[in-house]
Amino acid sequence: MAAQHLTPTPEDKFSFGLWTVGWAAADPFGSATRPDVDVIDAARRLADLGAYGITFHDDDVVPFEVGHKDPAGRDEILGRLKKVVADTGLAVPMVTTNLFGHPVFKEGAFTANDRDVRRFALRKAFRQLQLGAELGAQTFVMWGGREGSEVDGAKDVKAALDRYAEAVNLLTTYITEQGLDMRIAIEPKPNEPRGDILLPTIGHAIAFSYTLEHPHLVGVNPEVGHEQMSNLNFTAGIAQALAADKLFHIDLNGQHGPKFDQDLVFGHGDLLSAFWTVDLLENGFPGGGPTYTGPKHFDYKPNRTEDFDGIWASAAANMRTYLLLKERALAFRADPEVQAALQTASVTELAVPTLSEGESLADIVADRSAFEDFDADAKGGRGYGIGNLDQLAIEHLMGAR
Amino acid sequence: MAAQHLTPTPEDKFSFGLWTVGWAAADPFGSATRPDVDVIDAARRLADLGAYGITFHDDDVVPFEVGHKDPAGRDEILGRLKKVVADTGLAVPMVTTNLFGHPVFKEGAFTANDRDVRRFALRKAFRQLQLGAELGAQTFVMWGGREGSEVDGAKDVKAALDRYAEAVNLLTTYITEQGLDMRIAIEPKPNEPRGDILLPTIGHAIAFSYTLEHPHLVGVNPEVGHEQMSNLNFTAGIAQALAADKLFHIDLNGQHGPKFDQDLVFGHGDLLSAFWTVDLLENGFPGGGPTYTGPKHFDYKPNRTEDFDGIWASAAANMRTYLLLKERALAFRADPEVQAALQTASVTELAVPTLSEGESLADIVADRSAFEDFDADAKGGRGYGIGNLDQLAIEHLMGAR
Amino acid sequence: MAAQHLTPTPEDKFSFGLWTVGWAAADPFGSATRPDVDVIDAARRLADLGAYGITFHDDDVVPFEVGHKDPAGRDEILGRLKKVVADTGLAVPMVTTNLFGHPVFKEGAFTANDRDVRRFALRKAFRQLQLGAELGAQTFVMWGGREGSEVDGAKDVKAALDRYAEAVNLLTTYITEQGLDMRIAIEPKPNEPRGDILLPTIGHAIAFSYTLEHPHLVGVNPEVGHEQMSNLNFTAGIAQALAADKLFHIDLNGQHGPKFDQDLVFGHGDLLSAFWTVDLLENGFPGGGPTYTGPKHFDYKPNRTEDFDGIWASAAANMRTYLLLKERALAFRADPEVQAALQTASVTELAVPTLSEGESLADIVADRSAFEDFDADAKGGRGYGIGNLDQLAIEHLMGAR
Amino acid sequence: MAAQHLTPTPEDKFSFGLWTVGWAAADPFGSATRPDVDVIDAARRLADLGAYGITFHDDDVVPFEVGHKDPAGRDEILGRLKKVVADTGLAVPMVTTNLFGHPVFKEGAFTANDRDVRRFALRKAFRQLQLGAELGAQTFVMWGGREGSEVDGAKDVKAALDRYAEAVNLLTTYITEQGLDMRIAIEPKPNEPRGDILLPTIGHAIAFSYTLEHPHLVGVNPEVGHEQMSNLNFTAGIAQALAADKLFHIDLNGQHGPKFDQDLVFGHGDLLSAFWTVDLLENGFPGGGPTYTGPKHFDYKPNRTEDFDGIWASAAANMRTYLLLKERALAFRADPEVQAALQTASVTELAVPTLSEGESLADIVADRSAFEDFDADAKGGRGYGIGNLDQLAIEHLMGAR
Repeated sequence: MAAQHLTPTPEDKFSFGLWTVGWAAADPFGSATRPDVDVIDAARRLADLGAYGITFHDDDVVPFEVGHKDPAGRDEILGRLKKVVADTGLAVPMVTTNLFGHPVFKEGAFTANDRDVRRFALRKAFRQLQLGAELGAQTFVMWGGREGSEVDGAKDVKAALDRYAEAVNLLTTYITEQGLDMRIAIEPKPNEPRGDILLPTIGHAIAFSYTLEHPHLVGVNPEVGHEQMSNLNFTAGIAQALAADKLFHIDLNGQHGPKFDQDLVFGHGDLLSAFWTVDLLENGFPGGGPTYTGPKHFDYKPNRTEDFDGIWASAAANMRTYLLLKERALAFRADPEVQAALQTASVTELAVPTLSEGESLADIVADRSAFEDFDADAKGGRGYGIGNLDQLAIEHLMGAR
Repeated sequence: MAAQHLTPTPEDKFSFGLWTVGWAAADPFGSATRPDVDVIDAARRLADLGAYGITFHDDDVVPFEVGHKDPAGRDEILGRLKKVVADTGLAVPMVTTNLFGHPVFKEGAFTANDRDVRRFALRKAFRQLQLGAELGAQTFVMWGGREGSEVDGAKDVKAALDRYAEAVNLLTTYITEQGLDMRIAIEPKPNEPRGDILLPTIGHAIAFSYTLEHPHLVGVNPEVGHEQMSNLNFTAGIAQALAADKLFHIDLNGQHGPKFDQDLVFGHGDLLSAFWTVDLLENGFPGGGPTYTGPKHFDYKPNRTEDFDGIWASAAANMRTYLLLKERALAFRADPEVQAALQTASVTELAVPTLSEGESLADIVADRSAFEDFDADAKGGRGYGIGNLDQLAIEHLMGAR
Repeated sequence: MAAQHLTPTPEDKFSFGLWTVGWAAADPFGSATRPDVDVIDAARRLADLGAYGITFHDDDVVPFEVGHKDPAGRDEILGRLKKVVADTGLAVPMVTTNLFGHPVFKEGAFTANDRDVRRFALRKAFRQLQLGAELGAQTFVMWGGREGSEVDGAKDVKAALDRYAEAVNLLTTYITEQGLDMRIAIEPKPNEPRGDILLPTIGHAIAFSYTLEHPHLVGVNPEVGHEQMSNLNFTAGIAQALAADKLFHIDLNGQHGPKFDQDLVFGHGDLLSAFWTVDLLENGFPGGGPTYTGPKHFDYKPNRTEDFDGIWASAAANMRTYLLLKERALAFRADPEVQAALQTASVTELAVPTLSEGESLADIVADRSAFEDFDADAKGGRGYGIGNLDQLAIEHLMGAR
Repeated sequence: MAAQHLTPTPEDKFSFGLWTVGWAAADPFGSATRPDVDVIDAARRLADLGAYGITFHDDDVVPFEVGHKDPAGRDEILGRLKKVVADTGLAVPMVTTNLFGHPVFKEGAFTANDRDVRRFALRKAFRQLQLGAELGAQTFVMWGGREGSEVDGAKDVKAALDRYAEAVNLLTTYITEQGLDMRIAIEPKPNEPRGDILLPTIGHAIAFSYTLEHPHLVGVNPEVGHEQMSNLNFTAGIAQALAADKLFHIDLNGQHGPKFDQDLVFGHGDLLSAFWTVDLLENGFPGGGPTYTGPKHFDYKPNRTEDFDGIWASAAANMRTYLLLKERALAFRADPEVQAALQTASVTELAVPTLSEGESLADIVADRSAFEDFDADAKGGRGYGIGNLDQLAIEHLMGAR
């Protein structure tokens, strides 16, 4: 039950947002069910559970009003935070800015129609970027929860993306000028709290990144549930990001399809998809390519029905489920029967270029075997055995092989 | 009822896929309800209705077997097509390749695990590209309906995107070498017929385009229903594409949310969204920027319950609905009350850069009015009136203003 | 613009939940953007706008703690409410109980696993039922937002439905014993705030009602957005309820498909569906049958971006959109071309029984014209013109006919 | 690997639709990838794999034209079928009628606007009911794939439900008069092939059943994927059906959320949901109640990428996945830690009535401990540990406990 490899250690690089265990469990229809958590104390608890790092929005640690108007108060709180980090050895691999909670951001932050709001958002972000750099964070996540609208006519999308780009360009300019070891990761989400949010999926965010001044410094921080809210395949999404060297960070959690953002424990949603995600993160692409080496960051909420004990049980559950899936995924790839099934499906043949080495356009056009003499019907009859491969995966996932 | 401006003419640039009016109405649960349509004859009918152009997959006009193995038969059919085009003055602004119908493509085409299939797909695409160029098409649409999987482990996404890129690069190389006035438009779709399809949304396809050898030659052909199958906002999606100069072509139709691909008549789904789409296409971004000048292409299916008369009624309905929406959208933007509401919501203020002209990063960081002296609570209390703007749009859409 | 029939009057029977205009606009990711509204004062404003009635949860008017522990405080507040009702002539056609906001209900109310919670819920509901009766309410709505779970194994659905039935049976027993002119309307919702909610759709709620002790006293209160969160057809749903004499009340609002519960203004979502809904409510079934005569109740939220003026604008927008749709729907049904299209589609033929008068099972089995001599292919070729009917509806909706 | 209890036997009561293994793999975008299967021969193969029974639509075995116009041809084919059944000992526990494939049904069958179509549909259904009775089927499934519309105004829902009821009443009258041991099971589906289908969910179908002449003879045949197409919780849905004695039959398969009907192998979709489904089917409700004792019927499609071998592998995979899940579910319920977690969550307390034995309405209203003296805040603070219960389930599912 408590096999060594199922006990989390910092080497597993598991990190948690302080807002996760710190969530007091108010939701749109009900008030908080738990007293406020002292998130700085909570960090110690996460360290005890085997976590590698913590992450936070500015306002998670320093209340908005204090952060805005009380520099001394802010310093005192940050002093406590730094002490905990030093005491526990916890990393702070990522930070992010809360540009969605206060009413000032109700119509947007970096893309607010009101220019004054945009300037304030920029300043708030800069401050958190600086703090992150000071704490050694290598990733600065941008989740633009209020960047969007409920009414198409109320947002000029071209202008909004221009302003979004302006903001990110300023951040990366700062990073570049200061020589920081920091990158920006945009976190896509299709909706909630806004009716529609700009950059709604992994794809939209990556596409946007290419239009920026420092595209190599801007990638994505995909969240399981956010993609699944659009019923998109999360593993395929992060695979495209990884293939494009854009998977800078990852948010693991659980979701049951297109509905409100559930933020369940990792695996407590689409478990089969979670298996494939871990398979990709741990084993990489079958044909080789970039691998993900960053933290496995859990962005979830302990159920609103739980008390404090439930918070810590849920934190541990995220890590344990990941480690179990990792164990299963490693066994899956190592299984000779799986290897045979991959062969049957020609999975690795896909890494072979379609043109032969040195073959030109003219060559393939002249190759009668590729078209004129090709027997499409015969080829159409071959079986790929992909259902069998799925069954093998499920049996490995179930520990049945 | 038959106001001049509601009667379609070639100047409206309405085009139709021959497969739309040609659909014999077989579906996954039932056989064809209409006799086969001679699509070449059908083109004449579309011209009579006021269409500007026709588009087609290779197999829509020349049956697969003929196209593959019977060059003389193919020439004869294409001769008939060319005659109709010449007789009617119809444009052929776009062509595309059927890489999904024949069993040979069941596991993929450009990204098939089986390399022989990929080579055949390339050749088939080249032939259609050449034909398109000959007919004056400026857009070559690529819908990769079979490029995907039902089983995550059966497709190496990195290798698949590499092969996809290889295929597109070969096509754009050909275009470049031949000096053709042709661009590639990828048509995203999240699923159906495959469980998950690569490049599932506008965002994913644009992101992919930036990784290619000739990114300026590769954009997207978004379809209303395909984005709405993921419950994404279609207008916001094409707006991002347009802002990035990637909206090369567009497929207009109707859909009722996340379900099978309905391909209803344009407007016969989410009508309010259709209004905003036409508003963008006809009026452009409120703050200026690129505009769409290409064909308005209908990719829909006449209901399976209809006979031949219903086919032509539905073709006309697409155009009439578009023209009605255009009339409404023009009136909407011209309405002084709408102009006032846009002011109230500061919609056009978003085109003003966040930094002042000449302002540096250091300047804004030093600007106390942007942060230290900013009154967030006061600003948080302003009203934007976006609900009112929505109501104005709806009343214009309903012809009630 | 202000045509007489587009100005709401009490005869239109428009009602509003006090929680709608009273929403202070906190959401899961942000704090309130508006000061608290005095909902009793707000009622006067609704009356001024032409509303017929108001509705409320107990806690909307009397804060939970006051309602629970301070009888004198409660009486004072209710006294104010009664005065406003008397002064304005507003009806209170419906009341409902808040069994979801307080942490005590976090795991359920009538179906809480904890029996003490269930007893408390029952008592809270009884008090509100009594108050409703006193105020003349004829409908008691039950929305069980917390009756569900995120974890299947944590809820015994059989036992939960038994307890749900126990609660409703007690309420209807009370109604019966007291001779009240009151009925229960269950409001279905698939999820949010719970991961899955019991009785998730109109269908599930009606099915449940038949298992109760007083089924004729229990119907449904469907909400547009709640059904659309499951991408179900709202109009078809209320049609089934109406046909079964179960449509006791209705919640009108707007939603953009499967996502969080948006509670937009009526029509500010799927406008075409809203047209069909109003068509059914105002014109009834084409072939006759029960009609809905209750209040048109708006359960929506003014956008979080709005100030107080926006609240009242949004309240008015609900009513105006309804009246515009009503105008269009009346014209639609009266249009001879529509009548002809309904004939073409044989819509009214469906009210004709399949068996002839007096025809027995044996008779139809012996009728060779019904099978042996029936020409299925010929019949399969007829056209129904339903696409044309949709186009006519859209043109009426757009005021274009 | 081949543990005894994981090898299917007829005692497991696994049944297959002949249309499942018989699917030639044509889909809306592609032609058949497999030669036609002789479904009668296929039955032998299913028997060899350990299946208990087979089921079929009339047209699966006897082609439509033969069934309609060639009695001798029909008899010959049915003779072959009966021989296979006799030879193999396969049961025929269910039959159903194809009222969706032929163009004659394009606008509906029992609810077609065209009365002649309805009469033909009735006759076709009667014939299959008679055949089913002859073969010993105890369930007659009705899936009304064409009973719906794409256009709300084209279908009078009240009249349609009246005609649906007329049809079912005739069928149950026949059953009653003939004294058959047969019941009707309606199979709900929200859409596809029609834009919206009547009786779209388990709930709607059960609700409808109560309006019929012989409600005890009419229940439901829920299909995993059909409910998941609406993102509804399948297990909760069948639980409501089972609690109401309406779960007459069940269709097991796999689906990845709201998209086209995938008909994947059971478990090859939402695996965690499949676990809870098997837990309910095998272990029943935690607090007792009706149990499902009917066949476990697989209604799936072998992937279109597969050849004949893949068909049989997929058939076996359905059964093996079920048996693995059964093994896990039995261990889950037997685990003392799970029992403790159920206690912590008070799961079994829900079977205890809310009122005490003999307690009246007046009694609970007078019980101050239930309200006046109840400490809501204290009770609101208890933890239920449902996240922990989910984790225990997942670990059992993964074979990790």
